[in-house]
Amino acid sequence: MGKRGSDAPERGRSEQIYGHAARMFVERGFAATSMGDIALAVGITKAGLYHFVASKEDMLFNLMMWSMDTLDAEVTEPARMRADPLDRLVFLVHAHLRNIGTHNVDGGNPLTIIVDEPAGLSPERSAIVRGRKAAYYRFVRECLVALRHDGRLHDLDPSVATFSILGMIVWFARWYRPTGPLSLEAIIADMAQVALRGVVRPEALERHRNSSEVAHASA
Amino acid sequence: MGKRGSDAPERGRSEQIYGHAARMFVERGFAATSMGDIALAVGITKAGLYHFVASKEDMLFNLMMWSMDTLDAEVTEPARMRADPLDRLVFLVHAHLRNIGTHNVDGGNPLTIIVDEPAGLSPERSAIVRGRKAAYYRFVRECLVALRHDGRLHDLDPSVATFSILGMIVWFARWYRPTGPLSLEAIIADMAQVALRGVVRPEALERHRNSSEVAHASA
Repeated sequence: MGKRGSDAPERGRSEQIYGHAARMFVERGFAATSMGDIALAVGITKAGLYHFVASKEDMLFNLMMWSMDTLDAEVTEPARMRADPLDRLVFLVHAHLRNIGTHNVDGGNPLTIIVDEPAGLSPERSAIVRGRKAAYYRFVRECLVALRHDGRLHDLDPSVATFSILGMIVWFARWYRPTGPLSLEAIIADMAQVALRGVVRPEALERHRNSSEVAHASA
Repeated sequence: MGKRGSDAPERGRSEQIYGHAARMFVERGFAATSMGDIALAVGITKAGLYHFVASKEDMLFNLMMWSMDTLDAEVTEPARMRADPLDRLVFLVHAHLRNIGTHNVDGGNPLTIIVDEPAGLSPERSAIVRGRKAAYYRFVRECLVALRHDGRLHDLDPSVATFSILGMIVWFARWYRPTGPLSLEAIIADMAQVALRGVVRPEALERHRNSSEVAHASA
């Protein structure tokens, strides 16, 4: 979170506070978690906690913004660099799953889950979070619309296809445990196959796979 | 919910109470919803509300059990009647989506969403809900394991494939609005295609489609 940038020990403490808060918001719910509970979990006094954060709602909002920031930085922005819509879709499915798996803590990925729990925010802040989620949804949908135009999408409604893929991806935050038997990369590879085969025609996927292999071989 | 079976007006009131409670638990969160809020929404006194339900936690637990009961009755039990695992998978994907779409109220399907929010239940009751969800997950996974054995599944880990399909399905409860431009059946048809193509080999899906058509034609 690093709001207090220059002061390294304070920044570490701030990250610790946000980490505990995120976990407790997911496990107990936002309303059922008090500032006193968070202070106790971190091992500081309530007054000490207010030195770092102004309110519980601020923490929730900052966590959501931070989660959307990592999604933009790790998924949306690099995906925009890819001109071919299938190339973009393949990249973003993998990168979004990796984003969820990497920011995971035991008990699921609190950031992804928190973004889906609107209760607790003021209407203005709720609207900001909803707007950023809607922008991401539109970005993915545009990709599928482009694939539909050039005949590479199965005969599907692009909105339904977008919600289907995104549901599969965001749900990953709820079941993935880093201690499980499969590696993160093995899970991502399988899930990406399920998502891509579900919406893209096999010939187009096959051509994309071959051209990626050629690109790798000549690199 | 009809716990007070023989008394028709009371049963209607009970359903109304549970409907309001489900919506409020989803919109505000369980902890942020008080018995007073629910009474106000229903238009009865708090004392009147306690005539129907013993506690807020009881309402949450009853809603979860009812949600799992409809899943068993509408999805799991009829799916068990189908001997062929692909036939079973095709049926259960459609039936689960229909279950979610049918019990939908404006603002998503509160029952499906509530089942995914463990906060608010005692550890004993949490364990009951978790156990029923785990049994459903195993039922779907067994289907995929059987398809893998006879070569009809893509080369995927059956657990990852199961979580992928179920994520896509349960997420439907969060975005579906009966007032949207597509009919429920059109959405279900598209989502089922995404889920089935994602995990089942195209030749097996094609054979299944043809045999279903033959069965229909000769019926």
